[in-house]
Amino acid sequence: MQPPASPASPGSPASRADCLALDAADPLAPLRAEFALPKDRIYLDGNSLGVLPVRTPELVRRTVEQEWGQGLITSWNEAGWVDLPFTLGAQLAPLIGAGGHEVLVCDSVSVNLFKVLTAALRLRPGRRTVLGERTTFPTDLYIAEGVTGLFEGGRTVLLDSLDELDARLTEDVAVVVLSQVDYRTGVLLDLAEITERVHRAGALMVWDLCHSAGALPIELAAAGVDFAVGCTYKYLNCGPCAPSYLYVAERHQGVAEQPLTGWFGHAEPFAFVPEYRPADGIGRFLTSFPPLLALAGVRASLEVWQQVDLAQVRAKSLALTGLFMDRLAELDVVTPREPERRGSQVAIRHPDGFPVVQALIERGVIGDFRAPDLMRFGFTPLYTSYTEAWDAAEAVREVLASGEWRAERFSRRGAVT
Amino acid sequence: MQPPASPASPGSPASRADCLALDAADPLAPLRAEFALPKDRIYLDGNSLGVLPVRTPELVRRTVEQEWGQGLITSWNEAGWVDLPFTLGAQLAPLIGAGGHEVLVCDSVSVNLFKVLTAALRLRPGRRTVLGERTTFPTDLYIAEGVTGLFEGGRTVLLDSLDELDARLTEDVAVVVLSQVDYRTGVLLDLAEITERVHRAGALMVWDLCHSAGALPIELAAAGVDFAVGCTYKYLNCGPCAPSYLYVAERHQGVAEQPLTGWFGHAEPFAFVPEYRPADGIGRFLTSFPPLLALAGVRASLEVWQQVDLAQVRAKSLALTGLFMDRLAELDVVTPREPERRGSQVAIRHPDGFPVVQALIERGVIGDFRAPDLMRFGFTPLYTSYTEAWDAAEAVREVLASGEWRAERFSRRGAVT
Repeated sequence: MQPPASPASPGSPASRADCLALDAADPLAPLRAEFALPKDRIYLDGNSLGVLPVRTPELVRRTVEQEWGQGLITSWNEAGWVDLPFTLGAQLAPLIGAGGHEVLVCDSVSVNLFKVLTAALRLRPGRRTVLGERTTFPTDLYIAEGVTGLFEGGRTVLLDSLDELDARLTEDVAVVVLSQVDYRTGVLLDLAEITERVHRAGALMVWDLCHSAGALPIELAAAGVDFAVGCTYKYLNCGPCAPSYLYVAERHQGVAEQPLTGWFGHAEPFAFVPEYRPADGIGRFLTSFPPLLALAGVRASLEVWQQVDLAQVRAKSLALTGLFMDRLAELDVVTPREPERRGSQVAIRHPDGFPVVQALIERGVIGDFRAPDLMRFGFTPLYTSYTEAWDAAEAVREVLASGEWRAERFSRRGAVT
Repeated sequence: MQPPASPASPGSPASRADCLALDAADPLAPLRAEFALPKDRIYLDGNSLGVLPVRTPELVRRTVEQEWGQGLITSWNEAGWVDLPFTLGAQLAPLIGAGGHEVLVCDSVSVNLFKVLTAALRLRPGRRTVLGERTTFPTDLYIAEGVTGLFEGGRTVLLDSLDELDARLTEDVAVVVLSQVDYRTGVLLDLAEITERVHRAGALMVWDLCHSAGALPIELAAAGVDFAVGCTYKYLNCGPCAPSYLYVAERHQGVAEQPLTGWFGHAEPFAFVPEYRPADGIGRFLTSFPPLLALAGVRASLEVWQQVDLAQVRAKSLALTGLFMDRLAELDVVTPREPERRGSQVAIRHPDGFPVVQALIERGVIGDFRAPDLMRFGFTPLYTSYTEAWDAAEAVREVLASGEWRAERFSRRGAVT
């Protein structure tokens, strides 16, 4: 074993034996058994697609064979289908610091962002600008363009850096949309402080929680956030492209108007009247009903989350990312060292990041790559151990030291990973 | 057994023995084995939620346990996930008379209708009216309201009857949206003839195929239809609230602009650039990615459909609905007798329709009820037999004759059925 590349942070494990001891004492360790981890691999891509919970296949099977196959239309009532966007929203709410009646599970992140951005612009008549950050995951920016294109004089303005925020918070800004954790660098923003600044300028705040929910405690209501959206398939482990969620602060619910006015957002969806009348509460942000087979994945995973203490998640997340960064401190780590500025992933810049990631995958260490030069490693405290973080860092160092990533077979670029 | 209530139509079976003979000679009969039919019931609600194909549970299981559980992010390429909206669209296309590159599987009917209606309005600048029919399934009308509310001077005009269509096709009408089969009465419209009339008035045509696709041959391209949407969970049997589909005529694909501009509609979704640039073809109508667990249901069911001759489906559908109507001709049947004017369901008006349907369900005949007074019975030629249609009609007559529906237990109204 090589010596550590740099002095470890205080409290960081100095050996693999230390990591084994930390795993033995880890209060979250029992949860690892809840996940069907891929065999013989260290999976550090849970920030892209979370792993399969052990209990999910059976609930999906029951949904398919019993609820659909035998129950058929009676399952709308008897299996509680009709309430799922609300009941699952209420189960998810504590993970993001929301009231149980402030969250709905439905649609995709992009569709939900479209709803809340349009609603936000309508709540600020006379203002026509949506402000975003150029480095946000692009679908948010594309959707902002799509929304502002529907408003006379509407425009999307992108900041090159958040340092510009105050200067760009002009009187035309209706709403600011930001990702709490940057999908590339792992930079964590101060949600409460930024929300307050945006509010002082008279604008509304929309947070994208895709890369933070399930990785750290979030306090939307305490921070006075107006709207939020997030996916369920990364840290929340609900399944590939599973239905997403949206948050609408209670104070906006009776007033906000979103344009995807489908029948499930109607005050009386089963009255079948020809004119739309929005439901009183957050229900007006429903459009149609999410696919039930996919909702089974959400149901199963949220059962696991009911047992989780997010303070423990955050503490372990910082320990895992800290350990990984300590062990690789000689590299160009772009994720901040300060705990309050990082999420649960570590990004390392390397000019040959693509083949290096492929060589790591061949060794069984699954990270991913984002052009032009970022290697990303996600740490998911429910199922990643300290020992895995240690071994993954060793693998990175060994791959770089050996030059094995220069092999021809690692140079081909795939479509998605 | 009671005598038939009225003389049968020419060729209609005159006895249950005739029905058994028809079943024995039915070219579609082997397909019945493809479906996990509910035990001891005659399911006449496939026009609301299609039954489970036998092959679906295994494909869902494989998607969950292998593609997600073991493959994880590699399944984007290795399991072909990334192409599914296109490949499934191409498999579905022949069922609606579309080219393989004119159909996408994604999102819900309501969301897809929002996309195509907005695109249609933009293709007719200067025109600001969406024309619909008051009796169309309400979500279409609500979405039309949502869309026109985003255009200065936009408005949704509802026809009380299609007899008004020509008179209301003024120069302000940008687009007409109609359901090919009425969800309550089962009335089938002449898609080609109406499309031509709408085009003569300079407007575009959007068809909702929810209640027709899979029940009869549809020729969208031959009729020059501009856009269409439809669900996959009724006659297509893809699972409760499974992802829906949209059709965009090739001639509009490079020009039409829809506002839900998510990253999967980008020309280069994996370039992660901050500015939106729509894909060249129908891909620009994608927003985000549909849930993979739900797509497994679409994959499985479309395998079955690849074996189906829609001319046989239509012939059997007309025979089943004809037989049912013949046997119940003394009742207030609102579905047209003329084959060219009916879809694949029979609607019967009865002032006590709700408890009558409940009493039928207790007898194992599953239809449904739509306020204020319609009993609906859907006939799905892939898995409904002639004998079942005969027995169901007998059950209706017996329940009505016996008055058993007057029992207190049938009076309570559920939320959905």
